Amino acid sequence: MRAKRPTGNNALYRRGWRIRHAGFGEYGEEALRRLAAVDPGHARAICEFVFGTVWSRPHLSVKTRELIVLAVATALDKPNEVELHARAALRRGISRKEIVETVVQVAPYAGFPVTNHGLLAAQRAFDAADREGRAGGSRRGRG
Amino acid sequence: MRAKRPTGNNALYRRGWRIRHAGFGEYGEEALRRLAAVDPGHARAICEFVFGTVWSRPHLSVKTRELIVLAVATALDKPNEVELHARAALRRGISRKEIVETVVQVAPYAGFPVTNHGLLAAQRAFDAADREGRAGGSRRGRG
Amino acid sequence: MRAKRPTGNNALYRRGWRIRHAGFGEYGEEALRRLAAVDPGHARAICEFVFGTVWSRPHLSVKTRELIVLAVATALDKPNEVELHARAALRRGISRKEIVETVVQVAPYAGFPVTNHGLLAAQRAFDAADREGRAGGSRRGRG
Amino acid sequence: MRAKRPTGNNALYRRGWRIRHAGFGEYGEEALRRLAAVDPGHARAICEFVFGTVWSRPHLSVKTRELIVLAVATALDKPNEVELHARAALRRGISRKEIVETVVQVAPYAGFPVTNHGLLAAQRAFDAADREGRAGGSRRGRG
Amino acid sequence: MRAKRPTGNNALYRRGWRIRHAGFGEYGEEALRRLAAVDPGHARAICEFVFGTVWSRPHLSVKTRELIVLAVATALDKPNEVELHARAALRRGISRKEIVETVVQVAPYAGFPVTNHGLLAAQRAFDAADREGRAGGSRRGRG
Amino acid sequence: MRAKRPTGNNALYRRGWRIRHAGFGEYGEEALRRLAAVDPGHARAICEFVFGTVWSRPHLSVKTRELIVLAVATALDKPNEVELHARAALRRGISRKEIVETVVQVAPYAGFPVTNHGLLAAQRAFDAADREGRAGGSRRGRG
Repeated sequence: MRAKRPTGNNALYRRGWRIRHAGFGEYGEEALRRLAAVDPGHARAICEFVFGTVWSRPHLSVKTRELIVLAVATALDKPNEVELHARAALRRGISRKEIVETVVQVAPYAGFPVTNHGLLAAQRAFDAADREGRAGGSRRGRG
Repeated sequence: MRAKRPTGNNALYRRGWRIRHAGFGEYGEEALRRLAAVDPGHARAICEFVFGTVWSRPHLSVKTRELIVLAVATALDKPNEVELHARAALRRGISRKEIVETVVQVAPYAGFPVTNHGLLAAQRAFDAADREGRAGGSRRGRG
Repeated sequence: MRAKRPTGNNALYRRGWRIRHAGFGEYGEEALRRLAAVDPGHARAICEFVFGTVWSRPHLSVKTRELIVLAVATALDKPNEVELHARAALRRGISRKEIVETVVQVAPYAGFPVTNHGLLAAQRAFDAADREGRAGGSRRGRG
Repeated sequence: MRAKRPTGNNALYRRGWRIRHAGFGEYGEEALRRLAAVDPGHARAICEFVFGTVWSRPHLSVKTRELIVLAVATALDKPNEVELHARAALRRGISRKEIVETVVQVAPYAGFPVTNHGLLAAQRAFDAADREGRAGGSRRGRG
Repeated sequence: MRAKRPTGNNALYRRGWRIRHAGFGEYGEEALRRLAAVDPGHARAICEFVFGTVWSRPHLSVKTRELIVLAVATALDKPNEVELHARAALRRGISRKEIVETVVQVAPYAGFPVTNHGLLAAQRAFDAADREGRAGGSRRGRG
Repeated sequence: MRAKRPTGNNALYRRGWRIRHAGFGEYGEEALRRLAAVDPGHARAICEFVFGTVWSRPHLSVKTRELIVLAVATALDKPNEVELHARAALRRGISRKEIVETVVQVAPYAGFPVTNHGLLAAQRAFDAADREGRAGGSRRGRG
């Protein structure tokens, strides 16, 4: 029932879809479908431009890009984006401790209210990972 | 004449001063002195809290923290901070290509005007490094 | 029971109230009453200054002003304002497609998180119009 | 059961905790515990740096600092912070009218959407004070 | 010497370049070259994604999109973008009065400081048009 | 040559002009004339709405309102506004130390980059007061 593969058919879309899906999984598909119901072109640009063009660039790993996006989402006070990308970060093998550090590093540059929101959003992502029976890559060991 | 060592004398200050100085060098000392002339307590908090407490935390390297701060400074449209931290990034061994990638990764999340400002600020940092006869760690090879 | 006419009695207030009421209808009255319960002067300034002075200026139509405000509310990430003004836009004869385009045009300048929020807010406005049995001026034809 | 005294044991922490607790009371303890569950260092920095260092500075009273923070929270559109600090303001002896004025003074500098959110947040704080049987220092007399 | 035609060779790039060039002219080419010198991929995305994909969408005219972008640039306090897009607006046949109205309409939603900056930026665009011997489409008549 | 009295002739305008002029003096007149040259209605709204309506409200002193505006201008990273209002604050009898404290109080809520900008802007205002041979109300004594 749920999309298991990209619905677009050009190379850019497919490349972006794969990077995005590796992070967001089914939850991300649902979000994309809701956006596509309002405007298919905007949803397509998320795959083709955001992930197919920007996230696909060389010189930084997808893990490092994920930390960057987590920090930016925290600084711009988008807790839902923080939660979404914290879930993606866990799926990409980033530890819980690294996620928390990324949020906290934002405090001196954007203030405590946004990092408070960011930490609570990260906790929601951790709780969701616990409910799904996954340790988020890092409840033991270095994370 | 210029401070070669921290002027504060507690452990937190000294630890923060060293991390900050490794990035900003003499240029950073000058900036700190200007702030201290207006309010010494604020300048001290930059060493004790920003660098001595936050940047000193474990679980993320100083290099990764520098990329995070570069991204946040770009997203919040602080080109002077981007330039300052791009210079610091070069001194910390981050390549020019990684700096550029970090700025560009912000575009889908905060828009092109701020990444345009960020890229030009990064270029100013690269030009300064060229003038100072340093290749910024990365004009050849992977950077 | 609900206010059918402006409660202020100067010309500026009445002019602003009429422009505002044409967009927001009873829903807007309710919002204004809630604000007036906290501070009547602030609610009055919304009618006298925001709508009676700014929205009343010449050289741009109220429709164009509505698109401008929709775009600004999207860029500043105020989804409740986007929803409110999307409902107003429909009442002023703006099509659903024009509303969606206005939100999407913001993406390159303020990023995808705010346009994602904006599109979902616009959809809530469209759903409300559907429930109220109005096609929002544009379910058929060009809109 | 609930913390009646600071859990940290250095002087900076205790000083900050006292200033913070005088404003936020048990409600603030709960919020701090939630943050500490995600990252104890961040929660400690709120006591040591935010309240122990900044709020503890001379030359401005805690009351004036509370008005400043209320205004900044309004301008940055953080309604939960506005509500929290409006409750604190009442506990610190600031009148409801002064709180409302502080929010409204922000309108020309940051726009009406944020002051609308701020006023409704202030009202929630006033309602909470009413439920707790406290007049918030100011339902009669000058407030 | 200066580019008179798009340097990219795919259809998306050429379509975007034409819309952009119609607004920004040689001044825009210069700006694009400066960005391309730092990162060619980012400059290409400005043509392919920003103008080739978003500005090229149907249902709103390029003129209306220009007003939307002017308003967003004002609200986000990017005076250089306001100046650039005010120059583009004049070239696209938008009157000076419409440009001024667009900036002023932002005041109640984002505050007077940003509209003050926006008006002065618009004036710089008008002065540049005067120096170039063009009346900006509107020094007489309705504009 | 320079306006010594309000040029508008209604009561709201005159009341606002007087409050504004007491803070900004001739420097403010010059700024207002530049805005009025672009759009007279916007300049008039600054007198009638910003100062004649909002600043004129009861329950908070003009001094307290000045501190609030200084804090908001710092938080929103408008250093020119900070400088302008720091000069006004000195003229209204606020001490340099109170101005500095107001800026610093913003750091935990909006980050150090904006308070760095704010402190340097305040210093420029203090330097201007020194050049004008005024001690800014507070180089000795409590300030």
